[in-house]
Amino acid sequence: MAECNGNIKEILTSDMARRIYAQVKDLPIVDYHCHLSPREIYEDKPFENIGQMWLAGDHYKWRLMRACGIDEEYITGEKSWKEKYLAFCDAVSRSPGNPIWDWTAMELEKFFGVKKPFLPENAEEIWRACNDRIVKEKLSPRKAIAMCNVEYIATTDDPCDDLKYHKLLKEEGYPVRVAPSFRTDNIVNVGAPTYLEYVKKLSAASGVEIKDYYDLQEAIRARLDHFCAMGCKFSDVGVEGFPSFTWYEEMFEDGPAPEPTPQERAAAAFDKIMKGEELYDSEEDALKDDLYCFLSVEYAERDMVMQLHLCVTRDCNNEMYGVCGKDSGFDCVGENIEIKRLNRFLDQTHFDGKPFTIIYSLNPTIYYPLITLCGAFPGVVPGISWWFNDHRRGITELLAAAAELSSIDSLVGMLTDSRSFLSYPRHDYFRKILCEFLANVTPEVAEKYAVKVAKDLCCHNARRLVEESK
Amino acid sequence: MAECNGNIKEILTSDMARRIYAQVKDLPIVDYHCHLSPREIYEDKPFENIGQMWLAGDHYKWRLMRACGIDEEYITGEKSWKEKYLAFCDAVSRSPGNPIWDWTAMELEKFFGVKKPFLPENAEEIWRACNDRIVKEKLSPRKAIAMCNVEYIATTDDPCDDLKYHKLLKEEGYPVRVAPSFRTDNIVNVGAPTYLEYVKKLSAASGVEIKDYYDLQEAIRARLDHFCAMGCKFSDVGVEGFPSFTWYEEMFEDGPAPEPTPQERAAAAFDKIMKGEELYDSEEDALKDDLYCFLSVEYAERDMVMQLHLCVTRDCNNEMYGVCGKDSGFDCVGENIEIKRLNRFLDQTHFDGKPFTIIYSLNPTIYYPLITLCGAFPGVVPGISWWFNDHRRGITELLAAAAELSSIDSLVGMLTDSRSFLSYPRHDYFRKILCEFLANVTPEVAEKYAVKVAKDLCCHNARRLVEESK
Amino acid sequence: MAECNGNIKEILTSDMARRIYAQVKDLPIVDYHCHLSPREIYEDKPFENIGQMWLAGDHYKWRLMRACGIDEEYITGEKSWKEKYLAFCDAVSRSPGNPIWDWTAMELEKFFGVKKPFLPENAEEIWRACNDRIVKEKLSPRKAIAMCNVEYIATTDDPCDDLKYHKLLKEEGYPVRVAPSFRTDNIVNVGAPTYLEYVKKLSAASGVEIKDYYDLQEAIRARLDHFCAMGCKFSDVGVEGFPSFTWYEEMFEDGPAPEPTPQERAAAAFDKIMKGEELYDSEEDALKDDLYCFLSVEYAERDMVMQLHLCVTRDCNNEMYGVCGKDSGFDCVGENIEIKRLNRFLDQTHFDGKPFTIIYSLNPTIYYPLITLCGAFPGVVPGISWWFNDHRRGITELLAAAAELSSIDSLVGMLTDSRSFLSYPRHDYFRKILCEFLANVTPEVAEKYAVKVAKDLCCHNARRLVEESK
Repeated sequence: MAECNGNIKEILTSDMARRIYAQVKDLPIVDYHCHLSPREIYEDKPFENIGQMWLAGDHYKWRLMRACGIDEEYITGEKSWKEKYLAFCDAVSRSPGNPIWDWTAMELEKFFGVKKPFLPENAEEIWRACNDRIVKEKLSPRKAIAMCNVEYIATTDDPCDDLKYHKLLKEEGYPVRVAPSFRTDNIVNVGAPTYLEYVKKLSAASGVEIKDYYDLQEAIRARLDHFCAMGCKFSDVGVEGFPSFTWYEEMFEDGPAPEPTPQERAAAAFDKIMKGEELYDSEEDALKDDLYCFLSVEYAERDMVMQLHLCVTRDCNNEMYGVCGKDSGFDCVGENIEIKRLNRFLDQTHFDGKPFTIIYSLNPTIYYPLITLCGAFPGVVPGISWWFNDHRRGITELLAAAAELSSIDSLVGMLTDSRSFLSYPRHDYFRKILCEFLANVTPEVAEKYAVKVAKDLCCHNARRLVEESK
Repeated sequence: MAECNGNIKEILTSDMARRIYAQVKDLPIVDYHCHLSPREIYEDKPFENIGQMWLAGDHYKWRLMRACGIDEEYITGEKSWKEKYLAFCDAVSRSPGNPIWDWTAMELEKFFGVKKPFLPENAEEIWRACNDRIVKEKLSPRKAIAMCNVEYIATTDDPCDDLKYHKLLKEEGYPVRVAPSFRTDNIVNVGAPTYLEYVKKLSAASGVEIKDYYDLQEAIRARLDHFCAMGCKFSDVGVEGFPSFTWYEEMFEDGPAPEPTPQERAAAAFDKIMKGEELYDSEEDALKDDLYCFLSVEYAERDMVMQLHLCVTRDCNNEMYGVCGKDSGFDCVGENIEIKRLNRFLDQTHFDGKPFTIIYSLNPTIYYPLITLCGAFPGVVPGISWWFNDHRRGITELLAAAAELSSIDSLVGMLTDSRSFLSYPRHDYFRKILCEFLANVTPEVAEKYAVKVAKDLCCHNARRLVEESK
Repeated sequence: MAECNGNIKEILTSDMARRIYAQVKDLPIVDYHCHLSPREIYEDKPFENIGQMWLAGDHYKWRLMRACGIDEEYITGEKSWKEKYLAFCDAVSRSPGNPIWDWTAMELEKFFGVKKPFLPENAEEIWRACNDRIVKEKLSPRKAIAMCNVEYIATTDDPCDDLKYHKLLKEEGYPVRVAPSFRTDNIVNVGAPTYLEYVKKLSAASGVEIKDYYDLQEAIRARLDHFCAMGCKFSDVGVEGFPSFTWYEEMFEDGPAPEPTPQERAAAAFDKIMKGEELYDSEEDALKDDLYCFLSVEYAERDMVMQLHLCVTRDCNNEMYGVCGKDSGFDCVGENIEIKRLNRFLDQTHFDGKPFTIIYSLNPTIYYPLITLCGAFPGVVPGISWWFNDHRRGITELLAAAAELSSIDSLVGMLTDSRSFLSYPRHDYFRKILCEFLANVTPEVAEKYAVKVAKDLCCHNARRLVEESK
């Protein structure tokens, strides 16, 4: 196929699939959730070489190399980019069926015009071709973004972040909208040993002196207002565990309201933290419960979108954590959360379809409970296949489950969730997988409706969500 | 294909699949589990219009419309049937891959001879064509049943039900056997605030004055006898949760039998309820345990079939429950039950293959444990794909798991589980999916055996189960 | 297809799949985990008839017959081999989609040259043909092993086993390497009523008088040394449940080490057992925790491979256990273990990639958490589809998940896990399924890399593991 690099197994297998794809392949990208650095976008420094571009920070690739038994020296260690690149090429060649095979093929074609298969026999030639192109084209973050027709980028930012680079990009008039997202991991991780320190940071960032729980809430509100002034539309949270919301359940029972109220319990727990005392599990739970509920209400008031990233376990290997630190490829798919907890939370905080909520699960075995629960709350939708699920079968699985149990058109659609400027071809990957899926389930007489759904999930639904906030 | 409406993606993809299907497509339907109203069958009032037929009570369709963001006014609200019908058509067109797409196509063809795709451009024409046909043919419950070649219907009835309409149908000599099923949700839901009230109702229905747990058992026996006299063969239960059967586990341990016995514990718990006292969770569990075991023994004695519907969560959204009430599309796939509980229950109550037991799970991720557990108990079989799983992939998944882990021929086969007289084409849907599956796994030399299995699952296995009770 | 018996649905569906398969079909078999009897290999008695060969001990076949409602007389009862064989043929014909259909077809062709479909109309003819061949060829264990080109067999042996037949085979110079594996079920099942008795047996086998926990460890070490001297490379454990490793978790917390240490807790619990006292659950857990950790360290020191077989429930049916005993087809797929437990265990015991560890799960819904967790520990890999998952879809599911989340080449590859000498064609079954999978995910330009992976998983990876120990 013309649209395919030589080293990718064709995704589109029917004329109908190809026709639908032809209608969406050139749509702009609305990347409503990623981890790109606004600073790197602003500074726009040219890239060094394909080895550095691919292997400097991509934990997907590091995992693959480790699975192939490659020494850590070639992964996060001291070897040269060229040596790492060659080791990576070897790992890819041993890993058919891994999405990295597809991604590298698509990236080579998109950014470097390389159609040669990324296989050991071509590794040297591709190394030269890519690096020549990097120099010749002065390939840089903004160039990559432009090549992929990206119109919107929502980065992921800590509430204490000053959003300096977002501001600079705005002032400069950079044509791509780059908006911050409000990522609350550090706020809700109340059991972290560094929590008190974080509260101080938040105090400084917000200008609110935090003495008690009500001050904390005021500080968070101040930061939310700051973020929204910078165009923030999305919040996010992706910590391990999910609070139980048992305190809130009592609210639905007959009889008088529980004493103390959930908020009072949270305030008491926060006081203990401020005094440096340790919390019982139940106190930690009470504080988290109330923080989630408080944040949800604030999002609803600001017409923000709430994103939840669930069922993840982080930093599983203490030995390797000592060597490589966070986000270096030692996370894993977590146990499913108890769906009842999510039910309680939504029931307590979600009214009249607000806040619009997107729920991602890293564990695909919860899709059926999750999607049907979302279906019981207007304005709550499942998120697209996340992280380890972002491949042909994983994306198809999510699409199929959403189509079967809900309306596929209710999905917001694709995002990159990536730290790399080279990841934008994953949108094209998604588009092909989506079009193949739609062609497989839609009768030909209804093709134009499949095209509409495809356009919605490739661009329009996300754009609509973003536009509402302008 | 001749057998297909224009708006359905072909299910049968090989000559062998089509040949097998040709052998089963005209078999009668034995609907051994549904929620049709015996009163509506008896009264046989003609239908009003296609909008009312489709949208007056079908929570599948309501969910789809909500997922598409359609206002509740058009769903359970005040809009006219025509307006609701048009909104529904719009929702369907946005939802490729949803089984409602298939069902509507099959229903339009079967009952109304409509081959035009059910899409917005044809909505007006189809509205007129259907309503003309409803008037011209005086389409009514019995007409729909006759058009689908149904020979047996097991309705779902509360133990207190007087079965008046079953009796009237029998006396009238209605050629389709309409038998009641014994649905025990209200009996085992001992924690419900209305439980005491239900006990009184049961007392009145049975003529047994219920003063203690032993009276309760006598009353239940009386109702069982009444149901059996009316041709009842099936029981059913579909409540949230499943008791733990820890009391019974102690029975298998060494040493003297536990004191008090499980039955004595149940009796003590029931006494507390009768006094209006609240139960501890452990007491509630003890009472439920014993009720399940008691019922199981009674079914075995009467050669009845026990059905368990597991892993469901009901009424997830309090806000919408207030607006729409029960069974209006706010249920969801529940957590998997602990398979050990089911194991304890079967081990305690199932002997010599009795009672014949069918176990349905709404959560498909329990299929492997469930089907292998069934395989350890002769006369216990997994039920066919239930509710949210009743679609191409869901049915195929259940068939595949049963085929891999057991003998596919051990399945009883298709049922509708429906509240609508228009749902009978789902049998045809199942038949096609089954024949496609069988053709995909059976070598051609063994085609006649695939045909036998297809006939068994489309009709004969269910008929055999029913015949045994005549 | 030339390579197929008439009664099997073709597995290889493309030229590329067939080309890859052609490169691996004649590779030797390295069966690194099975339950063959070294005594039967040594004695090499000719088989009696196809009925006895198939039905004397195969619980897969017994389950299938029970699922078809066949009377136990024809399964484990008194009927003749011929009668059992005919009943079994009937069950197979009713069970399309069950892997036994494939296995019987492959076994008939491989060992008996029978190409006729195994269906009731051919049952008599096949009965005669097989039995003629058994007599004519003097078909025996060693003959079957030779026909299948097996080069290595790791049996499964209790630590108390004297390994007499392994020794005799070695002395005799039998060309196939037959090595023992160290199966620790009886060591870690500390709650078993027969545990004290087992400790005495271990004392006798090791020559170590076991008075306390430290003696127990010494005895185990002695048996490990004996096994290793006989060529043992693999350990295994496959009990229900998996300890919690909460004692070890405390080790990672700040502050001084917990008192008493995990080992001291284990020693105290063992002392109670020796005195005939009953353990609290927490004490049992502490003892199991420490035994798993102790064994893991010993394996690492000896460069042994640790195998874990998880998520299984055994002997579910007490009534039938009384009739048929253990391993007779009443086990089932168990609940998923808590992945956090496995994480703690690996984090505590796995360093520098040792011991090399293979983790099998009977429940496929844990594959995503399991495979990603393995990916966080170099030298830990998921095991190939186990038991109830050993069929086309089950094998493909595991391959796909491993390919997506890791490198498929990290898998060790196929094993039989079987008690029957006729099971070796399952390797051919696996090879076809693997080649079909690889052809489906690999672009044609990279075919030679798919071939390399196929060779690795069919033979080379297992051989490499075994060679390392020579």
